[in-house]
Amino acid sequence: MRPSGRAPDEMRTIEMIPGFSRHAEGSCLVKFGDTHVLVTASLEERVPPFLRGKGEGWVTAEYGMLPRATHTRGSREAAKGKQSGRTQEIQRLIGRSLRTIVDLKALGERQITVDCDVLQADGGTRTAAISGAWVALRIAIDKLMADGLLTVDPIRAQVAAISCGVYEGAAVLDLDYPEDSAAETDANFVMTDKGGIVEVQGTAERDPFDEETLLRMLRLARIGCSKIYAAQLKATGR
Amino acid sequence: MRPSGRAPDEMRTIEMIPGFSRHAEGSCLVKFGDTHVLVTASLEERVPPFLRGKGEGWVTAEYGMLPRATHTRGSREAAKGKQSGRTQEIQRLIGRSLRTIVDLKALGERQITVDCDVLQADGGTRTAAISGAWVALRIAIDKLMADGLLTVDPIRAQVAAISCGVYEGAAVLDLDYPEDSAAETDANFVMTDKGGIVEVQGTAERDPFDEETLLRMLRLARIGCSKIYAAQLKATGR
Amino acid sequence: MRPSGRAPDEMRTIEMIPGFSRHAEGSCLVKFGDTHVLVTASLEERVPPFLRGKGEGWVTAEYGMLPRATHTRGSREAAKGKQSGRTQEIQRLIGRSLRTIVDLKALGERQITVDCDVLQADGGTRTAAISGAWVALRIAIDKLMADGLLTVDPIRAQVAAISCGVYEGAAVLDLDYPEDSAAETDANFVMTDKGGIVEVQGTAERDPFDEETLLRMLRLARIGCSKIYAAQLKATGR
Amino acid sequence: MRPSGRAPDEMRTIEMIPGFSRHAEGSCLVKFGDTHVLVTASLEERVPPFLRGKGEGWVTAEYGMLPRATHTRGSREAAKGKQSGRTQEIQRLIGRSLRTIVDLKALGERQITVDCDVLQADGGTRTAAISGAWVALRIAIDKLMADGLLTVDPIRAQVAAISCGVYEGAAVLDLDYPEDSAAETDANFVMTDKGGIVEVQGTAERDPFDEETLLRMLRLARIGCSKIYAAQLKATGR
Amino acid sequence: MRPSGRAPDEMRTIEMIPGFSRHAEGSCLVKFGDTHVLVTASLEERVPPFLRGKGEGWVTAEYGMLPRATHTRGSREAAKGKQSGRTQEIQRLIGRSLRTIVDLKALGERQITVDCDVLQADGGTRTAAISGAWVALRIAIDKLMADGLLTVDPIRAQVAAISCGVYEGAAVLDLDYPEDSAAETDANFVMTDKGGIVEVQGTAERDPFDEETLLRMLRLARIGCSKIYAAQLKATGR
Amino acid sequence: MRPSGRAPDEMRTIEMIPGFSRHAEGSCLVKFGDTHVLVTASLEERVPPFLRGKGEGWVTAEYGMLPRATHTRGSREAAKGKQSGRTQEIQRLIGRSLRTIVDLKALGERQITVDCDVLQADGGTRTAAISGAWVALRIAIDKLMADGLLTVDPIRAQVAAISCGVYEGAAVLDLDYPEDSAAETDANFVMTDKGGIVEVQGTAERDPFDEETLLRMLRLARIGCSKIYAAQLKATGR
Repeated sequence: MRPSGRAPDEMRTIEMIPGFSRHAEGSCLVKFGDTHVLVTASLEERVPPFLRGKGEGWVTAEYGMLPRATHTRGSREAAKGKQSGRTQEIQRLIGRSLRTIVDLKALGERQITVDCDVLQADGGTRTAAISGAWVALRIAIDKLMADGLLTVDPIRAQVAAISCGVYEGAAVLDLDYPEDSAAETDANFVMTDKGGIVEVQGTAERDPFDEETLLRMLRLARIGCSKIYAAQLKATGR
Repeated sequence: MRPSGRAPDEMRTIEMIPGFSRHAEGSCLVKFGDTHVLVTASLEERVPPFLRGKGEGWVTAEYGMLPRATHTRGSREAAKGKQSGRTQEIQRLIGRSLRTIVDLKALGERQITVDCDVLQADGGTRTAAISGAWVALRIAIDKLMADGLLTVDPIRAQVAAISCGVYEGAAVLDLDYPEDSAAETDANFVMTDKGGIVEVQGTAERDPFDEETLLRMLRLARIGCSKIYAAQLKATGR
Repeated sequence: MRPSGRAPDEMRTIEMIPGFSRHAEGSCLVKFGDTHVLVTASLEERVPPFLRGKGEGWVTAEYGMLPRATHTRGSREAAKGKQSGRTQEIQRLIGRSLRTIVDLKALGERQITVDCDVLQADGGTRTAAISGAWVALRIAIDKLMADGLLTVDPIRAQVAAISCGVYEGAAVLDLDYPEDSAAETDANFVMTDKGGIVEVQGTAERDPFDEETLLRMLRLARIGCSKIYAAQLKATGR
Repeated sequence: MRPSGRAPDEMRTIEMIPGFSRHAEGSCLVKFGDTHVLVTASLEERVPPFLRGKGEGWVTAEYGMLPRATHTRGSREAAKGKQSGRTQEIQRLIGRSLRTIVDLKALGERQITVDCDVLQADGGTRTAAISGAWVALRIAIDKLMADGLLTVDPIRAQVAAISCGVYEGAAVLDLDYPEDSAAETDANFVMTDKGGIVEVQGTAERDPFDEETLLRMLRLARIGCSKIYAAQLKATGR
Repeated sequence: MRPSGRAPDEMRTIEMIPGFSRHAEGSCLVKFGDTHVLVTASLEERVPPFLRGKGEGWVTAEYGMLPRATHTRGSREAAKGKQSGRTQEIQRLIGRSLRTIVDLKALGERQITVDCDVLQADGGTRTAAISGAWVALRIAIDKLMADGLLTVDPIRAQVAAISCGVYEGAAVLDLDYPEDSAAETDANFVMTDKGGIVEVQGTAERDPFDEETLLRMLRLARIGCSKIYAAQLKATGR
Repeated sequence: MRPSGRAPDEMRTIEMIPGFSRHAEGSCLVKFGDTHVLVTASLEERVPPFLRGKGEGWVTAEYGMLPRATHTRGSREAAKGKQSGRTQEIQRLIGRSLRTIVDLKALGERQITVDCDVLQADGGTRTAAISGAWVALRIAIDKLMADGLLTVDPIRAQVAAISCGVYEGAAVLDLDYPEDSAAETDANFVMTDKGGIVEVQGTAERDPFDEETLLRMLRLARIGCSKIYAAQLKATGR
């Protein structure tokens, strides 16, 4: 069935190592099987120009992949002098997803930049990044609260993300690279622990898909996210 | 009440002017109300390096917005020296959507580049672009067939796109700018006239949304796309 | 004689559609035969750094060409990451020409940016752009005056531009693309309705030309510009 | 009264030092008073892609200014990462001017790149560059002929350039910086020793000018160019 | 007293984890105390243009630092669109150092690109990178030999690098960040296990230093490098 | 035997022409044999953002090479849109070297930018640049003092630089291009007239070198620098 032998609704092993990075206010090395993403949350006591003086904070994200995170070496974006469309699309998605669960007014005039750097890729880097980003963000906010700089918690929910797809005719959860590159349909779901959908991105890789397929993938995503919420709580000692 | 007074499932007036551009092999000025996009399809008898010698063609898209297409002038991407993340995201979506309905082998070793330039924006530029792109592409392919360069039609279906959203609590079809900027949830659907879904992109602008909302928007999208298919047929004289 | 069958001193049909763009303070779709340029004038209540606090305004221009405005598709400058030398040369010329007829002190500390985007090209895009720019600028200034923000009209004259050249030995007016690409000599004239010359740019494409040729082209240019002044007045309801 | 005390038709002292640069096939340090431009002509036995296999050569030019060639330091274009519009305009003019007097077929499939670098600026850098470029080009071609690589001389004429302008109401020749920055009208003329005009670029800096002014400047330019032709001949030992 | 309490000639704990990255032909996570660098060696069966057809291989390096590897977040070079001068200087040094110990003819027409990405920085990232790069390179070459693609070992020696400096008047080995930022003199040494010097870079941070200081730092460097050679052998199972 | 016939410890002829550039506060055309570098020191009454309000000045350097300074034409960095790694490395070295001998507090809140542009290259451009930069800087500071803007001289020492290398087995001083391109080892030394070392950069081009070679090169460098100090004093009339 699946190249990895997993059941259709079976996630890869999730590992979330909090505090992996020494300098960042919050950090997490998140592993979904062989996909490893290092996430750091960096706090700055300033906001971007468009928010100055509005009493609101900002959460943004940047994404990168080490050149040899993949099977064959990709060129380094810093050397090419620009970020690819794919990179920009992913970092916009991560930032948007995090802002949905943060009360920016409660955060106050400060910015948190979440850096998601893929050390090793085996499919699902953007969803692993979002899932790990919540942990890094949670740790950074906990630090702000412990330091007395915040009294009201600006985080309103947990956010997690997972990919689903149709592989050899069957809807499956948490695609690894061999599945991802052969999937007929591919969808990423970003959800909260309250049950809401933050973002759905479903793409037909070959033939269009139907509503039933979309719903089946959504159901799998709920199963996957519930595992991720648990891992997030464990990683942040909740 | 929608700002425009439209019913929840009511589209803006669609106008598709084929052959708007004199030099392009195919072209269409598409208007969804006050959103006006000029689409051209340019044929080249060569393919990108990764496809050379494989007997397959390629369809790709580029997107741009005139600086004063919007309420306030935006800076010109050519002058800034780079395309924004938003631009890249949109042009990747357009290209992907078109490739889903084209048989690239049947197209042969040639490339069609679809340029979508927004002359005036009032919400929904990417979905108007995809909808008009089909017309420009259809005309360019018809020309190839009329010239005897193709005998088998490589276009397998019509493709259309429309945005839906939740505005003041109600699911509505074909958001204009005032709705788009105030919507709680926003989704773009790309579909084919065979009923399949090519792409779904749903985003919670404030609070997460639920499965029911997603399905309601999908139903509206089907209504909208059926109108677009008809306009496409009319514009291409079918 | 001329590929188009026109007399040596005959212009192409001029069309100037004011208010083509909904959002801009002033706009004009200008057509010189098959050359179509969309011009918008955007007002901003700020000036560039070098003018701050000097009580003077600024008028500047940007120029672009849609990738398939031409016979074969050109690459998109935004995608290449820089504007060509030709583009920069043209937009500098447009800005300079407009500033000659505007009293910048009378304009006050505000900036008007004129965007000239070529939708379709058939020779003479820069001269059509300047001629249409005056219309867009006039409309934007009229709006400022109607709104009571200006009491003294800062526009001191009409400005128009036209190309002339030597085609198959004869001096001709308003070159279209077939003439332009075969001309021995090519000159652009920017003039005002008071009879003054704002800019002359004459270039020998093959062999040097003589003073007599320059003067003959200048005389043709005066004929052409007088037609353009009339079209400008009509387009602005004067 | 001109700031320098020169008569209206009086050039600055011209100095042309041939062979200033050791490595280039041709070179010249050209001085028009305090304007000093180092010109080198570099020969390469290849042509740009658009000319390959056509049996024709190419002559092109690049222009630069040392950051402190001017009264106040300008930023270095290499550090800014792009050439200004002014730089591109000038180097396009230089290349075009040189190509007018070279028989590219007679040159054969080789390219000559002329680099014009302003060591010190005091007005008229582009015209000094063109005038000195002829010397560098002449020397490089002489070398090709001496080496037996060319038997027919591809240079058809001398080319020289000079600026004229209207300063305090009077037409004057060869503007230096104090005149240039205060001139009402400014024109650059590129001419050949056969009496032909290669390029005219006249610009009204404040008020439009009339035909008479254009002709007066043209007459001054002829006077100036005749001095430059003599200096060119002397510098190349003719 | 060193901030860390180490003796002047005492290295930080060195850890070299071979095979850290799953996809690369060779890899190593190298830790010098809190400085952590992930090094991968990527093999490609092609060489840069200047070496094609010469029967020689190439070894090159790229260097990067994750934005939050440091105490305060630095901007991402991919987002800024260019690599800093510091980055380029370091990656040139790494590549040069590796090429000194590789017989490029024996390597054959293939290229090895060594990527050194700093996950966490605490001083000495470039020297840790070079030291770890040898391990990654060694593993990649071992693989080539095991696969029978090479019969003669192209690696001629071990190469290692270490920083030394003068801190509060005393020459010390292997500076960490607190020492590095306060050092009077700072030197990096690249050496081989045969005793030769590959590169010396000594810099006076405040006052010039004397020959005696240079020699004292060189002696410390030898002590440090001998520790690194041992760690390299252990990491590669020799 | 050195290609030039010089003795191992013999410098090329040094020429330093002060005041070569008319506009700069300080300037020097420095020649080490056929290596010619034009250095200007430009004074600005402002400091970079990181120093604002700290009562300290800044000295920085930029480096460039005219495209045809070398045997074959190199591409123009301004046209390529970026400075090479080599350029950045050199300009960082020049700036660092100058800052070592300037008391930045005594300079006050002003910046001196030293531009080093290579007009002709024959090896040793960076060391000639540093040596000439001192002259340009000295002249600019003398002007500040003569103008009464500084009362305490912020220059604490002379700084000079020279390259040494091992050519055909022998340590030699002041490498020209034929030696430089064939040298086994290559080292640049930056020193002060008080005997201190500011920077040492020794690189093995092929085989590693030993301590004895480093010391022999250092001794040659002292000989060379003493010649340069004398030339600097002469050029600045001391």
